[in-house]
Amino acid sequence: MDNLLSKINHPKQLRAFETSQLTELAHEMREFILDTLSVKPGHLGASLGVIELTIALHYYYNTPNDLLIWDVGHQCYPHKILTGRKNIFESLRQKNGISGFPSRIESEFDTFGTGHSSTSISAIVGMATADKINQIKRKHIAIIGDASITSGMSLEALNHLGSTDLDVLVILNDNDIGIDPSVGGLKKHFKSLNNPTQNIFTDFGLNFIGTIDGHNFTDLLNAFEKADTINGPKVLHIKTTKGKGYEQAENDQVKWHAPGLFNKETGEIVKSNPPKTYQDVFGETMHQLLAENKKIVAITPAMITGSNLAKSHHDFPERVFDVGIAEQHAVTFAAGLATQNTIPYCVVYSTFLQRAYDQIIHDVALQNLPVIFCVDRAGFVGTDGATHHGVFDISFLRDIPNMIVSSPRNEKDFRNLLYTAQFTTQPFAIRYPKNKISTTNSLTFEKMEIGKSEIIFEGNKLAILSTGLISARVEEIIKQNKLQDKIALIDFPFIKPLDQNRLKAIALKYPTIITYEDGIKTGGFGSSVSEFLNTLHYKGNITINGYPDEFVEHASIAELEELVGLDDHSILEMILSYI
Amino acid sequence: MDNLLSKINHPKQLRAFETSQLTELAHEMREFILDTLSVKPGHLGASLGVIELTIALHYYYNTPNDLLIWDVGHQCYPHKILTGRKNIFESLRQKNGISGFPSRIESEFDTFGTGHSSTSISAIVGMATADKINQIKRKHIAIIGDASITSGMSLEALNHLGSTDLDVLVILNDNDIGIDPSVGGLKKHFKSLNNPTQNIFTDFGLNFIGTIDGHNFTDLLNAFEKADTINGPKVLHIKTTKGKGYEQAENDQVKWHAPGLFNKETGEIVKSNPPKTYQDVFGETMHQLLAENKKIVAITPAMITGSNLAKSHHDFPERVFDVGIAEQHAVTFAAGLATQNTIPYCVVYSTFLQRAYDQIIHDVALQNLPVIFCVDRAGFVGTDGATHHGVFDISFLRDIPNMIVSSPRNEKDFRNLLYTAQFTTQPFAIRYPKNKISTTNSLTFEKMEIGKSEIIFEGNKLAILSTGLISARVEEIIKQNKLQDKIALIDFPFIKPLDQNRLKAIALKYPTIITYEDGIKTGGFGSSVSEFLNTLHYKGNITINGYPDEFVEHASIAELEELVGLDDHSILEMILSYI
Repeated sequence: MDNLLSKINHPKQLRAFETSQLTELAHEMREFILDTLSVKPGHLGASLGVIELTIALHYYYNTPNDLLIWDVGHQCYPHKILTGRKNIFESLRQKNGISGFPSRIESEFDTFGTGHSSTSISAIVGMATADKINQIKRKHIAIIGDASITSGMSLEALNHLGSTDLDVLVILNDNDIGIDPSVGGLKKHFKSLNNPTQNIFTDFGLNFIGTIDGHNFTDLLNAFEKADTINGPKVLHIKTTKGKGYEQAENDQVKWHAPGLFNKETGEIVKSNPPKTYQDVFGETMHQLLAENKKIVAITPAMITGSNLAKSHHDFPERVFDVGIAEQHAVTFAAGLATQNTIPYCVVYSTFLQRAYDQIIHDVALQNLPVIFCVDRAGFVGTDGATHHGVFDISFLRDIPNMIVSSPRNEKDFRNLLYTAQFTTQPFAIRYPKNKISTTNSLTFEKMEIGKSEIIFEGNKLAILSTGLISARVEEIIKQNKLQDKIALIDFPFIKPLDQNRLKAIALKYPTIITYEDGIKTGGFGSSVSEFLNTLHYKGNITINGYPDEFVEHASIAELEELVGLDDHSILEMILSYI
Repeated sequence: MDNLLSKINHPKQLRAFETSQLTELAHEMREFILDTLSVKPGHLGASLGVIELTIALHYYYNTPNDLLIWDVGHQCYPHKILTGRKNIFESLRQKNGISGFPSRIESEFDTFGTGHSSTSISAIVGMATADKINQIKRKHIAIIGDASITSGMSLEALNHLGSTDLDVLVILNDNDIGIDPSVGGLKKHFKSLNNPTQNIFTDFGLNFIGTIDGHNFTDLLNAFEKADTINGPKVLHIKTTKGKGYEQAENDQVKWHAPGLFNKETGEIVKSNPPKTYQDVFGETMHQLLAENKKIVAITPAMITGSNLAKSHHDFPERVFDVGIAEQHAVTFAAGLATQNTIPYCVVYSTFLQRAYDQIIHDVALQNLPVIFCVDRAGFVGTDGATHHGVFDISFLRDIPNMIVSSPRNEKDFRNLLYTAQFTTQPFAIRYPKNKISTTNSLTFEKMEIGKSEIIFEGNKLAILSTGLISARVEEIIKQNKLQDKIALIDFPFIKPLDQNRLKAIALKYPTIITYEDGIKTGGFGSSVSEFLNTLHYKGNITINGYPDEFVEHASIAELEELVGLDDHSILEMILSYI
């Protein structure tokens, strides 16, 4: 079945093949990827689309000496399969298994980790510059999609690269789609990149090759040869089809980006009945708010589907904006909207909001503009791993003056926070995890009091202060173990402003205070509590629980919680040790 | 002398003028600006360059109803003069005076605060979108320089704008220079923007008008009229001369960007003999390190002069890189360099490093790459004000796993930190203020032990823990008041890793611990100390001193320190209150 693929443990074995064998190899790889991903979920579409490109690159170039960077690494599966990881490929994205993205600690072929998009050109320019300084001759290639290349940092890198004489090849893998269809003015330009002497890349000072069919080996290899004859930086424009070679994936590219489990033969995606998630509640509630208040606007940087905004985007196209992979622009665009009598909800994954930190500070908070940040995927995200965990947002948001930082423990609070935020006169962040939500019956909206905490249990031995989903988990643990008499549990929907009055009362009453949060401990919610208790000269014990000061790899969220001592069992043990 | 200018308190008075009077008005404004800035230092060059443009804009458009945004606001002085602030213009950048940048709280004509560059297009697209939703008809104009438009977020905004039908006018004010001469591949393209149907702006989907002379009123007004006839988004390309109309400023644009005090008649810049600053030490030391170690590379995003890298750039052009206003690229470029056996020193102002937060986390720290961050302008920067203070960096850097965060109190430590950093195997930040440095005689390099604090005084009543410049100030205060017997002063050149052994010893010995830092208290150094003391169940009092949780306006650094209770007198009073 996989006669050719089975011979490749290193690209040098691939390089011994005849060119005529590559098509058969591509077929085998496609089957291998489909076989594996149908039972081990992963990013299918992008990987199917770059099989020919990946084979051609490792066939033509002398990897790993020649340096390849795959932008937004979920197109890297064929690369992993060809570079010694075929036999452990089924461990993809699982605990102790291989990462879903390129990883420097995993393989020398993975020259740069690329979980976030649009970093590859900057990194390859750095590598080529270093090699120039060190007088090392080799090839430097970045492969980047059409959605990623329009992000600001890619364009900054092209502007730098275009002013150098570095022998860098940027391959623009143009499939007209990111996770959702690509957007923006350049999209149209890319459709007619037929003028090799004047287009956006030549404007940047780069040489241009293309456009060629990225599924055709002859064209690809000829193009690499041509690139070799051109000194200085150059762009090769190739067209590919996301999901290539698997009909269902070609026909519904959004759904098959990362389809989960599926039946390879029938092309049916395995339906599961997952519990209601924060994302479900967000999508429904945002739609309801958009319907009720015509001033409300929603903005996403290329995450219409991921953020569950598709229905809102469909029903309110004039008020729901996908601005592309452009987090910096998304936030300042929202700031501009906020100055002119609209109410922007800027919906960004926690890990990607890091891209817009200055815009939050300088354009929103400093001017005290009422931009609402819906901070999705806060906390561990599971199998996407270290590049995608949303663990820093409490720390980096609470440091910013004027910010309201909130995190709901259940459906009722989440809906009410989203509802309440529209009345804000200052920046308002709502962080919520990729996880199931503790559902509630109340579906009418109620305005929440900013900064108010809520007493859940009033036990007398120790006080637990908690925020977000983990509050609901601790509540359940206390209930199941009938500890309500001993433990006070206070939920803080608002991390900032802190409910100082409540903290004063707690400080007077309890000799032991324990905090819980779904985020990194350093500078987080517990740290904030501790800062305030200092000012009261509190003499009891404070114990802060959260994620440790380290990057945490991929695994299921439950496995990761166990790893850091935040699974139910560990929480119970810790509580019991105090009473 | 200023017959025309004196009649303008609002642009509507300007709009009553004959077009033929505008040249005379420009002359009067030029004199007024030179008169004022020669005695009240400010950003001269950019403002001289946009006098005609500013007059033409307020003459043609119906401000403030029509919305103007000035990108990187230091080109906004003529705008302030024409919009009701002429009589308070001499209070520019002074305590309680007008800001050096557009400020929404200062005037309705300042529609958006723009201390940082490249935000104007995003903001104007937001405003125009809001007006479309609210069905308000008016004009939307962003004015942006050629150095700023190449920054990533500007290009993201152009990509969004180009896919809309918004009636936005972007004026590209092309003077071939930012603070230092512009760099990058697009620079060349801008020189020959003569194809109105195919250039980078039309590639983005925008209409293009130009190129015209930005000092010629007829051309400007004709161009605005032409813009009015074109539906949808458009770019107007104008050429101007930075420093226009003042010979010295035209001839040395870098020096006259913000020349300080000068004699208007002779064109001589008033020489002062300022004390040695951190910037002086940085420039000298970096040059020395570049000379001694051929693996060392320095990178600045458009701050060659500000970061005192001019001599290094001149002497080591192959290893000192100005990548333009491109902080995101700068950091990931450095990450790429670090993977290939070079030692990158990435030199970025604290406030601008916020632009690269995700790149620090995702591209550098997660991969544990030894990139050295020289974090300039940390702490209050003085008259540039709230947009430029470097107050968040301790908080946002110490939350990142793998990071070393350091801050030197004097010349010796600064030089040794810069020297020591080249041997690091992990990310290494050195934060230092815009301020005079406590000089030392020792000029040989000594490798510092990472994470080690230093006891300066061993008094027995209370312990002061401090980091950075303020350590040297507290040292001086203790000395002058002969408090060495009562006060222990421990300097922490390393904020992270914290010297935990020292903290354990201090916790055992002192019932009172006071911390000092030149940064925001929230999540900062004191917060970190408090987090650790919690784990020891420390029962003494901890008092954290630093900047408050608010944005602080412009004034001299000394005035700002007084404002937040960190002047010498307040520090002494606080110390005395504890002993």
